[in-house]
Amino acid sequence: MPTDVAIDARGAIDLLKELRALTADDNGAQRLAWSPMWIKAREWFQAKLRALPVEHHYDAAGNSWSTLKGKSEKALLIGSHLDSVPNGGWLDGALGVISAYAVLKRVAEEYDGKPPVTVRLVDWADEEGARFGRSLFGSSAFAGTETIEADRGRTDSTGKRLEDALAECGVRINEIGNAGIERKNAAAYLELHIEQGPVLESMNLPLGAVLGTKGVERHLITFHGQEAHSGSTPMNARRDALAAAAKLALEIRPIAKKHPDAVCTMGSVKTFPGIVTAVVGRCEATLDQRDLNADVLAAMYKEAQEKSRQFAQEENCTVEWSRIWNIAPEPFHPQLIEFCEQAIRETVGRSHRLPSGPLHDAAEVSRCGIPTTMMFVQSLKGISHNKIEDTSEEHLELAIVALDKLAQKTMDWIQKAGTKGSREQGTGETAS
Amino acid sequence: MPTDVAIDARGAIDLLKELRALTADDNGAQRLAWSPMWIKAREWFQAKLRALPVEHHYDAAGNSWSTLKGKSEKALLIGSHLDSVPNGGWLDGALGVISAYAVLKRVAEEYDGKPPVTVRLVDWADEEGARFGRSLFGSSAFAGTETIEADRGRTDSTGKRLEDALAECGVRINEIGNAGIERKNAAAYLELHIEQGPVLESMNLPLGAVLGTKGVERHLITFHGQEAHSGSTPMNARRDALAAAAKLALEIRPIAKKHPDAVCTMGSVKTFPGIVTAVVGRCEATLDQRDLNADVLAAMYKEAQEKSRQFAQEENCTVEWSRIWNIAPEPFHPQLIEFCEQAIRETVGRSHRLPSGPLHDAAEVSRCGIPTTMMFVQSLKGISHNKIEDTSEEHLELAIVALDKLAQKTMDWIQKAGTKGSREQGTGETAS
Repeated sequence: MPTDVAIDARGAIDLLKELRALTADDNGAQRLAWSPMWIKAREWFQAKLRALPVEHHYDAAGNSWSTLKGKSEKALLIGSHLDSVPNGGWLDGALGVISAYAVLKRVAEEYDGKPPVTVRLVDWADEEGARFGRSLFGSSAFAGTETIEADRGRTDSTGKRLEDALAECGVRINEIGNAGIERKNAAAYLELHIEQGPVLESMNLPLGAVLGTKGVERHLITFHGQEAHSGSTPMNARRDALAAAAKLALEIRPIAKKHPDAVCTMGSVKTFPGIVTAVVGRCEATLDQRDLNADVLAAMYKEAQEKSRQFAQEENCTVEWSRIWNIAPEPFHPQLIEFCEQAIRETVGRSHRLPSGPLHDAAEVSRCGIPTTMMFVQSLKGISHNKIEDTSEEHLELAIVALDKLAQKTMDWIQKAGTKGSREQGTGETAS
Repeated sequence: MPTDVAIDARGAIDLLKELRALTADDNGAQRLAWSPMWIKAREWFQAKLRALPVEHHYDAAGNSWSTLKGKSEKALLIGSHLDSVPNGGWLDGALGVISAYAVLKRVAEEYDGKPPVTVRLVDWADEEGARFGRSLFGSSAFAGTETIEADRGRTDSTGKRLEDALAECGVRINEIGNAGIERKNAAAYLELHIEQGPVLESMNLPLGAVLGTKGVERHLITFHGQEAHSGSTPMNARRDALAAAAKLALEIRPIAKKHPDAVCTMGSVKTFPGIVTAVVGRCEATLDQRDLNADVLAAMYKEAQEKSRQFAQEENCTVEWSRIWNIAPEPFHPQLIEFCEQAIRETVGRSHRLPSGPLHDAAEVSRCGIPTTMMFVQSLKGISHNKIEDTSEEHLELAIVALDKLAQKTMDWIQKAGTKGSREQGTGETAS
């Protein structure tokens, strides 16, 4: 159903620029979570929200909720995060929050402050984990997947403990699980984000519908050979740990390319003793593997392990693997993905479905059973987490308009489900 | 001609053990050049030499000369170095010096203190360059290839200048070139050394004749690609600098294996930013290439460069090379190599000719025109510059006996050349 009030996409872009002027320096955005600059950004945003007919509060994990109450308590959640990495870009996270504000404003005007379903804007706390190494802090507390005991002792580069930094912002680490109360009546979650990759730009498409977030298998792989003198050790007498690692660095590429959207990355190689006059006795390499399909991810992991053992044997070395981290894939909700594609096609004519390689708060929301999807807008040169991160203003405008269409479709879907019984309509058990 | 007096090989091994007890700790030998422990080793050695009818002095570069004057002033030089790397082995250098002492003692006894030609034992100063990074310090001063201006400002890890460390040992850096006076009447140079590699052990041979020291081309190779997010960058959109370097790490092996004794080593790889979540944007690798034949070395260098450019292009990267260091090959004297093989065969039945990958003082002596060769004795496991460096005592005894035979053959050759005119006999112009 077409809306009567047009969303103010230009105004949203002006707000993004205002936020950038307020919270960036010559090196980029500096809205590091739990820092004074982040607090400043949130206070600036609260001042904007005061003009809307919304109730506001921070939950137990520091997530910021602005609720436009509808005729139904069933709620559409829309949001992203205001925090940035140090020296970050102007759009990562901020675009999703500010565009959610534009949608909330449009809906409030459209329905004279009383839409058929409740609409809630969320600004998640510490999505980036840039300071304490704990990504998706607020959304995992919301989803009930927080890891308080493991995180309590985390420190930043100055030695300050996460627990203490939270306390200064009024968040008690023991109580962050209480943020789960915000799941009540949540019927769907939407998030607009920059792609942070080159796919849409390479296809000359402004917008894409996100299929889910890829699962990740992240390992440290150590090859053990024999340190030896570079001058006195014949080629055929060597046990060169670097050679085994080099073979694996090349082999992970065909392993990934068997699957359409899979990626495998060797991001770090360290050589020991690492001097010009010695054959490498030990080589440490990291491997990061991602795919949206859990079976594909498991198959790639297994294949890389097998190949590493083969290469170690060929080079008369040994190999050991140790897991750094892993997370399961999180496919998004089929109906919402379909709405997202419709909204994109209605706005720009063409759409594309793609998985997200980076993690997002949306993955945590989806994991706890709330129907979720994301929309991506093209990133110029695929660059993010950098002050040169950018998207054309034309594409930002289209993204905000398309998000608004997606929000409206989702509100209508929630409303319809409410009249028929939410469980049958697939809005998920936490929404009922 | 067989000698009447047997060399005291057992006594030489006992001296090596005495030196080890005096100058090693739990981590190995600690005879770092220009250090109190090195001075202590040299003083201990001087005390042993006092029992022989030799004149002793230190030259302007700190090399230690002990001269047994013969009927002819034409001199056979035999030696090696007493200095070690930190945490070094008991044989590297010390074997050559102590076995030269045993030869000098045998010759003095054999000829009642007046051999037909002069025999000089040399203990070169600072062969290892372990403290100031300047290898072959004393022998290059002897050979006239010293680099005073470049070396003057060198500092050790504590910031102490080479010039000052030398002064404390009575060596004035401006005057080290005066060590060249020791070249006078030098007719040949011999050095016994542990192989520091696995070749003789793999052939089950105790001893080998050394063909010369390999030339070295040493470069830093930097591949430039594009740093990118490991999750959001499709495999076919990457410019992975590590992939280009990995291809080169594998390609240097067939490049080396085209030539019988050539070696190519990638000893250090560094990745930037070097984190698990980023495609490698820049990769720095070192390449060390060695061969005894200058044309082979030049061909390998050229081929590695060409392949690196090919791999950079394949990976949509660029590559740059910068030379770290290079040195020309130094083939030893054919007649002395032949004598060395004869001496080995007479001692153990079988011999083998092999180039030296590591550099030695002998290379500097040979480079200035003095006929030179070396003899290698088997290294257990090919390990050196380590406290576990070792050679079986049986092989040490055989080595000292074979060195003595080589010394006698060379003395005879020098004597014969002296009666016929040295130039025609190939003892080199500096010997005339």
